Amino acid sequence: MQFTVLTLFPEMIEQGFSTSITGRAMEKGLLSLRCVNIRDYASDRYGHVDDYPYGGGAGMVMQAPPIYRAYTAAAGEGKHPRLVYVTPQGRVFDQALAKELAKEEELFILCGHYEGVDERILEEIATDRISIGDYVLTGGELPALVIMDAVARMVPGVLSNEESGEDESFMNGLLEYPQYTRPEVFMGRLVPEILKSGHHANIARWRRHESLRRTKQVRPELLETAKLDPDDQKFLQSLEMEEI
Amino acid sequence: MQFTVLTLFPEMIEQGFSTSITGRAMEKGLLSLRCVNIRDYASDRYGHVDDYPYGGGAGMVMQAPPIYRAYTAAAGEGKHPRLVYVTPQGRVFDQALAKELAKEEELFILCGHYEGVDERILEEIATDRISIGDYVLTGGELPALVIMDAVARMVPGVLSNEESGEDESFMNGLLEYPQYTRPEVFMGRLVPEILKSGHHANIARWRRHESLRRTKQVRPELLETAKLDPDDQKFLQSLEMEEI
Repeated sequence: MQFTVLTLFPEMIEQGFSTSITGRAMEKGLLSLRCVNIRDYASDRYGHVDDYPYGGGAGMVMQAPPIYRAYTAAAGEGKHPRLVYVTPQGRVFDQALAKELAKEEELFILCGHYEGVDERILEEIATDRISIGDYVLTGGELPALVIMDAVARMVPGVLSNEESGEDESFMNGLLEYPQYTRPEVFMGRLVPEILKSGHHANIARWRRHESLRRTKQVRPELLETAKLDPDDQKFLQSLEMEEI
Repeated sequence: MQFTVLTLFPEMIEQGFSTSITGRAMEKGLLSLRCVNIRDYASDRYGHVDDYPYGGGAGMVMQAPPIYRAYTAAAGEGKHPRLVYVTPQGRVFDQALAKELAKEEELFILCGHYEGVDERILEEIATDRISIGDYVLTGGELPALVIMDAVARMVPGVLSNEESGEDESFMNGLLEYPQYTRPEVFMGRLVPEILKSGHHANIARWRRHESLRRTKQVRPELLETAKLDPDDQKFLQSLEMEEI
């Protein structure tokens, strides 16, 4: 899978993507990254890529022509690859969308800055507008890296077998249960007895219950869409009894 | 404001934070960053910081003692600064939380890796568990950078007057209206006439309507909590009429 990122800060994308699992996958040839500096396609020799917004208001808006030239140079004349524009004005990113994007052989990402980008370039080249959450960031580079990391993990072969198991439990729509490792006692706090019992079915049930408990406490709205069996329902009812 | 990040990848945090607006704010002395490499506080001379989970399962869990030693070395004996653990098992990050965290003089962030961290270190030192969204990432470094960027922007003086205006419109609970800048014609697409009219009240009203239209299309649930005046209500009703 090839990522092409149109950005004013290519070094930030390159550094962020070259670490850890995504860096290892690039070395293996499973992923590749191409950064295009929009400033190299500026309209004048001063490297200007932004201008004041029509209609007034604070901030500067990135101009359409430099972005279009950068895009055409990377995509090729007449080609229209899938292109994600990262923006708070987008569909909210989630694991299902990460899986969907991981099916593309080629994915373009456009990183905005300043007050945003001219709407007309988005109408022309953006196939998706995606938000990673309801907060304001300085630019599109961090959200682009977040999307690329989540997508890259879903590309077959990027995660080892050992690692790929971890995603399954998130996929079931509940928060994860708590984890414990050595030492057995830490600052007077013990590992729950059941995790040392070796009884797999009991451990699985305890973890499922802790997932339900945590989801109910922190993100109760997730329970509305999670798949729950009769034992889950019974446990949730017992939690409600405790509260009374 | 001082950020202290406990991480296995300090160079990723340092590079990500030193660009753009946050880098400029560090040069001005408004922000400072301290990264503590948890591996420097490993339990053995091989630098091990993780171990198998009690109860079995895929992946490795980060051990409590190295994290605790890194924390104590940075915070000082007996001190308990606010500490955010970034995890999908957390409260969902948003702009209101960014504003709240920006009031702290000192903020610690713990980045997890592998299958997570031992629950007992979180019980001991974490004051907040925060998720940036419902997707799985390789580690806590990107989410930490996202939180730091959003928080840093809310620290007084970090944004110039010109820049700070941009947040207001996000604060009103609607998505932003589209932006346009020069050239006036791009690939046959024109700038909306009204933005060139110079009539400020009409421009403001058009932008408000476009915000409402976009919010209704992409994130209708935001309309339930947004502050709407009678003109907004009327416009939303007219949109519904168009659909019929």
